[in-house]
Amino acid sequence: MEYPSKLIEDAVNEVSKLPGIGKKTALRLVLHLVKENENRTLALTESLNKLRANIRLCKTCFNISDDAECAICRSHRRDHSMVCVVEESNDVMAIENTSQYHGVYHVLGGVISPINGIGPSELKIEQLLQRLTQKKNEIQEVILALSPTMEGDTTAFYINRKLKEMNMKVTSIARGVPVGGNLEYTDEITLGRSITARIIFD
Amino acid sequence: MEYPSKLIEDAVNEVSKLPGIGKKTALRLVLHLVKENENRTLALTESLNKLRANIRLCKTCFNISDDAECAICRSHRRDHSMVCVVEESNDVMAIENTSQYHGVYHVLGGVISPINGIGPSELKIEQLLQRLTQKKNEIQEVILALSPTMEGDTTAFYINRKLKEMNMKVTSIARGVPVGGNLEYTDEITLGRSITARIIFD
Repeated sequence: MEYPSKLIEDAVNEVSKLPGIGKKTALRLVLHLVKENENRTLALTESLNKLRANIRLCKTCFNISDDAECAICRSHRRDHSMVCVVEESNDVMAIENTSQYHGVYHVLGGVISPINGIGPSELKIEQLLQRLTQKKNEIQEVILALSPTMEGDTTAFYINRKLKEMNMKVTSIARGVPVGGNLEYTDEITLGRSITARIIFD
Repeated sequence: MEYPSKLIEDAVNEVSKLPGIGKKTALRLVLHLVKENENRTLALTESLNKLRANIRLCKTCFNISDDAECAICRSHRRDHSMVCVVEESNDVMAIENTSQYHGVYHVLGGVISPINGIGPSELKIEQLLQRLTQKKNEIQEVILALSPTMEGDTTAFYINRKLKEMNMKVTSIARGVPVGGNLEYTDEITLGRSITARIIFD
């Protein structure tokens, strides 16, 4: 694609580095900004710069936070005896949206993935073990809420082994046929496991 | 959606104002920036600010340009006797990519759309007429390359009437069945018109 302007080309190159944004979408977004008032672009870039400069990770759970400790870790209304281990901050948001969990979290910052060069030391696993040791009497249960993928399973397996050494109660989120799902269209592995791991009908 | 941070929320609100970007996509993009190096965000925001501050419209054809006059209008290799009238800068890019046109352009900046409050005076139509009057001896043909929509047709009709008063040769890009298209799946209006406006087989 030939661009009529070097400025456009540079902007398209930067925007298209974002995940899921190709050159065509980037061009559409950039031309939209050019057509709109300059204040719109300034508001956008300022909010991103401010975010990037000021965002922090909560010192306890490593969720993204405006302050040194996040609102969930600071809250007295949360059940601090349960720690839910997730990959990323957006998993916290997804679980919060269900309104079904009232404990606290621990954000690993990813999953073990040798192919991408991510080992246990790149994640907040050591910090999780420290946290559990420090609050040994307070924390009763660790819930593993990792993606049902190879990497997620590997990470869950690794953490589970470490936690068993500490005699911690470890649970995992349930896996099976999704609500509203059609058996016919459920993949064989999920369906097979949902039969093996069947639950008592009550 | 509850966000863990005011900074995230502000950034998501700004990003989701972009066309075709919803809150979920905006959140994904914002979390991606948070995870990456701060320099990435700075490079992105700088390129957008620089673009918005320095981009100009070519004084002749109103295409976006880094300079007072765009590269196409300045070029001696282009055929300055043909002016192709388009809606937006991306239409220029699309036509340039075909390598089938060697004339110059005129970018209207939109189409007549009473429903959006855009009349002929909001577009660069007056500037087109002035340009044609000034270069009366040079410009031989005006090609209308507007979208085959209600608004595009209205705009083409309006411009055509004005140009006929000036005794200018006015043509329009061909409309018909797209190359590689399947007759069965072509809409009736396009197919109907392609029969009415049939061409001699050579």
